[in-house]
Amino acid sequence: MAKPDKDAPRRPEARVPKGMRDIGAAELRQTHAMLETIRKVYERYGFEPLETPAFEYTDALGKFLPDQDRPNAGVFSFQDEDEQWLSLRYDLTAPLARYVAENFQDLPKPFRRYATGSVYRNEKPGPGRFRQFTQFDADTVGAESVAADAEMCMLAADTLEALGIPRGQYVIKVNNRKVLDGVLSSIGIDPASPSDATKRMTVLRAVDKLDRLGPTGVAELLGKGRKDESGDFTKGAGLEAPAIEKVLAFVGAGTKDGCATLEAIEPLVSGGEGGSQGLSELRDINALVTAAGYGPDRILVDPSVVRGLEYYTGPVFEAELLIPAKDEKGNPVRFGSVGGGGRYDDLVARFTGQKVPATGFSIGVSRLQAALNLIGRAPAPELGPVVVTVMDKDQIPAYQKMVQTLREAGVRAELFLGNPKKFGRQLEYADKRSSPVVVIQGSNEREAGQVILKDLIEGAKAAQAIKDNKEWKEARPAQISVPQAELVQHVREILARHTS
Amino acid sequence: MAKPDKDAPRRPEARVPKGMRDIGAAELRQTHAMLETIRKVYERYGFEPLETPAFEYTDALGKFLPDQDRPNAGVFSFQDEDEQWLSLRYDLTAPLARYVAENFQDLPKPFRRYATGSVYRNEKPGPGRFRQFTQFDADTVGAESVAADAEMCMLAADTLEALGIPRGQYVIKVNNRKVLDGVLSSIGIDPASPSDATKRMTVLRAVDKLDRLGPTGVAELLGKGRKDESGDFTKGAGLEAPAIEKVLAFVGAGTKDGCATLEAIEPLVSGGEGGSQGLSELRDINALVTAAGYGPDRILVDPSVVRGLEYYTGPVFEAELLIPAKDEKGNPVRFGSVGGGGRYDDLVARFTGQKVPATGFSIGVSRLQAALNLIGRAPAPELGPVVVTVMDKDQIPAYQKMVQTLREAGVRAELFLGNPKKFGRQLEYADKRSSPVVVIQGSNEREAGQVILKDLIEGAKAAQAIKDNKEWKEARPAQISVPQAELVQHVREILARHTS
Repeated sequence: MAKPDKDAPRRPEARVPKGMRDIGAAELRQTHAMLETIRKVYERYGFEPLETPAFEYTDALGKFLPDQDRPNAGVFSFQDEDEQWLSLRYDLTAPLARYVAENFQDLPKPFRRYATGSVYRNEKPGPGRFRQFTQFDADTVGAESVAADAEMCMLAADTLEALGIPRGQYVIKVNNRKVLDGVLSSIGIDPASPSDATKRMTVLRAVDKLDRLGPTGVAELLGKGRKDESGDFTKGAGLEAPAIEKVLAFVGAGTKDGCATLEAIEPLVSGGEGGSQGLSELRDINALVTAAGYGPDRILVDPSVVRGLEYYTGPVFEAELLIPAKDEKGNPVRFGSVGGGGRYDDLVARFTGQKVPATGFSIGVSRLQAALNLIGRAPAPELGPVVVTVMDKDQIPAYQKMVQTLREAGVRAELFLGNPKKFGRQLEYADKRSSPVVVIQGSNEREAGQVILKDLIEGAKAAQAIKDNKEWKEARPAQISVPQAELVQHVREILARHTS
Repeated sequence: MAKPDKDAPRRPEARVPKGMRDIGAAELRQTHAMLETIRKVYERYGFEPLETPAFEYTDALGKFLPDQDRPNAGVFSFQDEDEQWLSLRYDLTAPLARYVAENFQDLPKPFRRYATGSVYRNEKPGPGRFRQFTQFDADTVGAESVAADAEMCMLAADTLEALGIPRGQYVIKVNNRKVLDGVLSSIGIDPASPSDATKRMTVLRAVDKLDRLGPTGVAELLGKGRKDESGDFTKGAGLEAPAIEKVLAFVGAGTKDGCATLEAIEPLVSGGEGGSQGLSELRDINALVTAAGYGPDRILVDPSVVRGLEYYTGPVFEAELLIPAKDEKGNPVRFGSVGGGGRYDDLVARFTGQKVPATGFSIGVSRLQAALNLIGRAPAPELGPVVVTVMDKDQIPAYQKMVQTLREAGVRAELFLGNPKKFGRQLEYADKRSSPVVVIQGSNEREAGQVILKDLIEGAKAAQAIKDNKEWKEARPAQISVPQAELVQHVREILARHTS
């Protein structure tokens, strides 16, 4: 490093924090439309909005994240002046549990709420993997019935369809942690024993990676361990070969027919109480969604679904897109999950000691949006504002007045606010802003009570057709002179041509 | 503290962090409507959305907050694994400056963006004063012309009116830091001298408290200092009596007429270059907004406006509500500012060394919303969902199907998901959710292919009229039996009665 000049002010470097990103207009407009669509579906299901703070006391959030080998256990934490630890929320479920525990007496029961907002993970960033992202959750707290879980699956299906994903191109997969625990019992892992807890989570998280790693990778993680492409070694669960086989047979038992799958997995689940209860819950969910008209093309029992979070206690769901797509390099891409959820009956009890059954579904908004873009479902970019240009600097109040007249008529418009000296720069600016029309008034027009409207979209088309510069100047394509009093009317006419 | 029982699991206490709050459905719905209204106005003005992360590198945010005597200098900070310091953003302007410096080449110039989101202040919480709150900003970067500042004032006025604040009940006050600096020059404080910088900010921040403390309090802060109600002492700027008098004369020189005010303050401003330039800019802004039809009833030159943030370099604005109101105890309340902004020509140069003129306006959404509620402009609460009750547990799939039928027709509806044993609890739940209609089907109705619709709003009215319990039961007010096939149609009819 060069020795800093003592007299020069030290300037910070302008850089977005590692793993974070800025989001521009086109993407934000799309996100906004998505959030409105999701909100409408969640509202239609009777959920009410709730917003909790961006951070919570660290002990209130608990530690339920997978891959806790990172500093701060996957969360961003800091101390308040009274030395209590605070952490940015890593999901919207843990804060909900805190809220319910704190306000239990005043809430309607069941309590049905939706929430959307940013969540934060102190994880290794990667391509398309950011440390801040948006979730959109719906949860029902205080409902023991699996009808609440079945409803989450239907909500997920309806939401994806409302976002424009055609039926048949997504599936909501449903499974049950209790059934998984039944399989674990049968290979000697006791789900109720604290001494087996770590081994159990290692197995569950290995299975959760089936999508990404395939059966061979999962088998390694179930056994001794696995070295990834970067050479990092992840310790395995240490299962023996027959146990690994049994787990893989279970997670691979899915078919296109929920009832057939349920029959196929029954013999693999231990006779223990948990396993049979889990199976019976899965059957009930399957019956409920079928009765409501949601067939296996939309909601399907799938034994491979696990979810990475530790707090799930029963049914778990995952929303997956089935549309084939390619990444920027033309390689075929699997989207994997764009949302998920499940039942977490013990999360409120962490605070109160009193069991409060709860279930929820969460959409990974940023991830789903990336998927929609990859399959070409992004909406067309919007038109920019009408730009009123500045020909004479001392006429700025008059130009500004034109802008306000357009705005009052509901037309998106602005005055060129940069240095007006070079007129070409003003047109370049209008182009860069995707402006459909620029308004021009020099002294000649002003004296005649006229304004010139330049249709930039028509003009761009015409420019492609006209090759000769002289011909271009003479034709002045897509440019009209109109009385200033009719400004709004003529601008509207041009806009109407480009938005129909 | 009691000795903890070694065997009992240690439970975290469910509590929202100090200075933070949870926001419920009614307020959130109102916020959402407000944000949509603001968004529309900002879009109409030609601004484009941008979202930056919730936190930035601490050095990139800089230290511009008033009252920096708190730990962390007013912000929440934490270290990344590579030991770089990060801070939650305290406003949306500092991150914008970072963004512009980082992406300068690719941006249209001027760059006009709007942004909304939470900002965080590590300040002493107080009544109605939270550590997380929502701002909604518009900024124009790269425009030297005060036309950009004038536009901010018009934007502010249009936004308040769009939110339902009648003309005459708000005012956008505009002033100029350069004019203030002219006054400071005249009393021996050199705005350009680093050694006078602290004294200058102490004076500016004293003046900024005029609204809250009145001239006497401000005079104390300009002089030796001031002890507040809690006994805390704030050190003053140490000015002598004649200097204090001059500052107070200046800030008190406002009239209801911008031109008259400009004439009144001219002799108080030092002959120095800055002061006259500031006066000339104020005159230009006044001329621009007047030409565009915004009279002094909407946008008014006011020498008392300062703004607390350090980074302003020229015009500063403040949006103030004039509606008289009372707090919960019936005391008259002054709202003070619900938004503000100004020009900050040096903020991008902090990074690049290259001056980039910029100006912006920020609405304090939470504060403005509180004001709207206090003056009774909160919208009426919305109706809750239709609740389909559970009479027979084994019929849950059929009830769920009814719910889905209603939802498919666009009706907000849900199944009662709690324990269905006590039917009265289901009605209590529907009441608590502000449900307009409950749907009931017992075995008799089912056999007859009927459902019962209970109009809870009509029922509540009738219940007030009927005193006798027996009479009530016989009348069964607001309850009809309809064919199940006509469920949607009849529910819609009842809803239409209550939403017109």
